[in-house]
Amino acid sequence: MLKTIPVNTNNRTEMLDITAEIERVVQESNQKEGLCVIFVPHTTAAITINENADPDVLTDILQELETVIPFEDNYRHLEGNSAAHIKSSLIGSSISVIIEDGKLKLGTWQGIVFCEFDGPRTRDVWIKII
Amino acid sequence: MLKTIPVNTNNRTEMLDITAEIERVVQESNQKEGLCVIFVPHTTAAITINENADPDVLTDILQELETVIPFEDNYRHLEGNSAAHIKSSLIGSSISVIIEDGKLKLGTWQGIVFCEFDGPRTRDVWIKII
Amino acid sequence: MLKTIPVNTNNRTEMLDITAEIERVVQESNQKEGLCVIFVPHTTAAITINENADPDVLTDILQELETVIPFEDNYRHLEGNSAAHIKSSLIGSSISVIIEDGKLKLGTWQGIVFCEFDGPRTRDVWIKII
Repeated sequence: MLKTIPVNTNNRTEMLDITAEIERVVQESNQKEGLCVIFVPHTTAAITINENADPDVLTDILQELETVIPFEDNYRHLEGNSAAHIKSSLIGSSISVIIEDGKLKLGTWQGIVFCEFDGPRTRDVWIKII
Repeated sequence: MLKTIPVNTNNRTEMLDITAEIERVVQESNQKEGLCVIFVPHTTAAITINENADPDVLTDILQELETVIPFEDNYRHLEGNSAAHIKSSLIGSSISVIIEDGKLKLGTWQGIVFCEFDGPRTRDVWIKII
Repeated sequence: MLKTIPVNTNNRTEMLDITAEIERVVQESNQKEGLCVIFVPHTTAAITINENADPDVLTDILQELETVIPFEDNYRHLEGNSAAHIKSSLIGSSISVIIEDGKLKLGTWQGIVFCEFDGPRTRDVWIKII
């Protein structure tokens, strides 16, 4: 089963918890156990898992990534978004989450987080259940 | 099949080769071919694959990560472990390894390495065989 | 089904689009839908997904990675390639791509890119279709 979730971002860089949307797809699939592969079909965005409790964690991640990979750093790519491409490969464009008892099996503090590195944009996330 | 492996860490940051423990789970599953998904249910730890021969490689990885993502860098998250959260997303919380002939299929120098970024702690690793 | 693709690199660091080679393996498998797991069995190389249009993007990624993780930085590992090991764990040694209608399902600008961090060498990429 393959499903697409739309994600709208509002800032140049942004991290959005999309765990609930993905959980809904898993429940609608009626699959009791297996693997949920979450894939971002963009080269200036990414997907990761991190803390879903204190939003300052996601702010710190975005801020430190910008410190390490500055928006401007004598890049050759003329579109001006090379930093976003680099962050996309560092964080990665897919994750795999175990499905158990018909639900995503995540740690207590884990949420699934969409990473926008060149927004604001209208984005998609693909979900494949194995 | 889903299995949990406990991992005890002894330092603030640490990389532990857990290939043998995961190999044992694969063998006990009696599955001859497929995929082994290894998932870390923590937001200040990670899982990666790297050299299993010279332990200096893992020391260099930890040290350079600390240089790039310092423990203190005006983070907002009050728990004081933002660097660990950032490293967790950079390295990633899951990997997939091919199973062939009932064993993990890894390159000659590859080991599966648990990464502690906010220890010492008692951690878990989840293993799902597909 | 498990297949090996050889990759020859010509420089110390290099990013090579291998989407066409992997697409061929998927088509030869005759599998209509599922998951394609691409695995690099080396500890100084990696696999990622990024832009396949402007080659300057890949040049910028390599260059910025070298700025962040310098070749020389008082590493302990005597082989002199610690930077390559670190980049390998940051980018990652496996990716998962959805298969639909017998083809890799990628975003418009996405290509599958082999990352050499300690070349030139003769490398392998393993492909498992689930």
